[in-house]
Amino acid sequence: MIRLHLPDDLSAGAEITPAAPQAHYLVSVMRAKAGESVLLFNGRDGEWRARLTAADRRACRLVVEALTRPQTAPPDLELVVALVKRARLETIVEKAVELGCRRIRLVVTRRTHADRARPPRLQAIATEAAEQTGRLDVPEVVEPEKLDAVLDGWDAGRRLMFCDEAGDDPGAEWGGSDGRARPALEALSGAAESAPWAVLIGPEGGFDPGERARLRGLSFVTPVTLGPRILRADTAVIAALTLWQAALGDWRPTES
Amino acid sequence: MIRLHLPDDLSAGAEITPAAPQAHYLVSVMRAKAGESVLLFNGRDGEWRARLTAADRRACRLVVEALTRPQTAPPDLELVVALVKRARLETIVEKAVELGCRRIRLVVTRRTHADRARPPRLQAIATEAAEQTGRLDVPEVVEPEKLDAVLDGWDAGRRLMFCDEAGDDPGAEWGGSDGRARPALEALSGAAESAPWAVLIGPEGGFDPGERARLRGLSFVTPVTLGPRILRADTAVIAALTLWQAALGDWRPTES
Repeated sequence: MIRLHLPDDLSAGAEITPAAPQAHYLVSVMRAKAGESVLLFNGRDGEWRARLTAADRRACRLVVEALTRPQTAPPDLELVVALVKRARLETIVEKAVELGCRRIRLVVTRRTHADRARPPRLQAIATEAAEQTGRLDVPEVVEPEKLDAVLDGWDAGRRLMFCDEAGDDPGAEWGGSDGRARPALEALSGAAESAPWAVLIGPEGGFDPGERARLRGLSFVTPVTLGPRILRADTAVIAALTLWQAALGDWRPTES
Repeated sequence: MIRLHLPDDLSAGAEITPAAPQAHYLVSVMRAKAGESVLLFNGRDGEWRARLTAADRRACRLVVEALTRPQTAPPDLELVVALVKRARLETIVEKAVELGCRRIRLVVTRRTHADRARPPRLQAIATEAAEQTGRLDVPEVVEPEKLDAVLDGWDAGRRLMFCDEAGDDPGAEWGGSDGRARPALEALSGAAESAPWAVLIGPEGGFDPGERARLRGLSFVTPVTLGPRILRADTAVIAALTLWQAALGDWRPTES
């Protein structure tokens, strides 16, 4: 069944005339017909089944029928990711949505070559990914900021899992009892449940020594390694978010 | 430093005239110059530093100088993945190489829409990914086979981690004490170390009920779930391989 994110309020019996982008998606992209049922969500009111009462290019209307799932939010996990080339950045946004991030912050580091992003395009990708993956919310994609500014303003109550790329002097300078960063799963295993976290992934080429020194001195940072091979930025994002969800997030076993 | 996979034997002092594709890569793509050092590997003899003694379009020659790393192989992990659309399949091959798979087997399932792949193109992607990620071997990409034939010929000494897509009746029929598939990390935690494994990822749209029933009846299969959201095939591949490497593979803590 088609799932559609839209800004309108949702409640039983509500009649909705979708705005142009959503109407275009339903009628022209998905070729939905009058009488068909679709699922709607707006990030506030849960997921609702609705029926198309008109579906052509001049008019598109929906009647909201019944709540299918109450509103829920994924665990409080954010992604902080350095700008990379456009195609990989778009992949990163899609995957961060599938893997349950609440917010995606773009950062410019000293070795970041790309310095532009198109947040509206990335926000559209996030919306489509949320529709596809079955989420009830759409993560916000935040305009690029400098890494130093992000760290200056960091809320120390949120842990930051700092993923060091394996190829650049892998962890030899890190903190920890033996002076090395620990494998991500081990480093996360002892962490408190239900604390807010973020995952930090650098540019291809890594962080520079000054950035690494600063990160390693911050009380809220947990440095981790992601295996013995060099990972591209998009692979590192998916791997890190997966390990976090498995260790601390909503991929953990549920009580039955 | 440039890393190059080539078929030639490698030993100290060996003089190599690279075949056309490798010469083209060095001279025209990477613009390497005579006198420059590069790293070579062939999947058998470890990684060697070599020096370019000629580097133009008419002649490209290398002299092998010193061993930089002895030959090693990643853990015995294979990927069995249903054909998906070309761009996502290419991503899957790149990521499986970064995540340390030894072999990539393409399969056709009952719900597979794509029925063609270009193994030579995929093999080239695997080679480039191996060069980039720092591996000493290049995984083989195997021509598509039918899933049933793959299971008919399965070596029961190799465990198969069967990833059920969350969106399709998530695990309700599965084996296990409570009748459900377990989260991947939990399911892998008790497994014997150093056994050979494979990861099975289905097409977008999932396995059909007959396939799922067969898989669930096989002694070598461990069914697992990958969280509460619907994942695209490429995301599922990366997530499953990451969890395997973290739980049983070469992302585990090393003794110090």
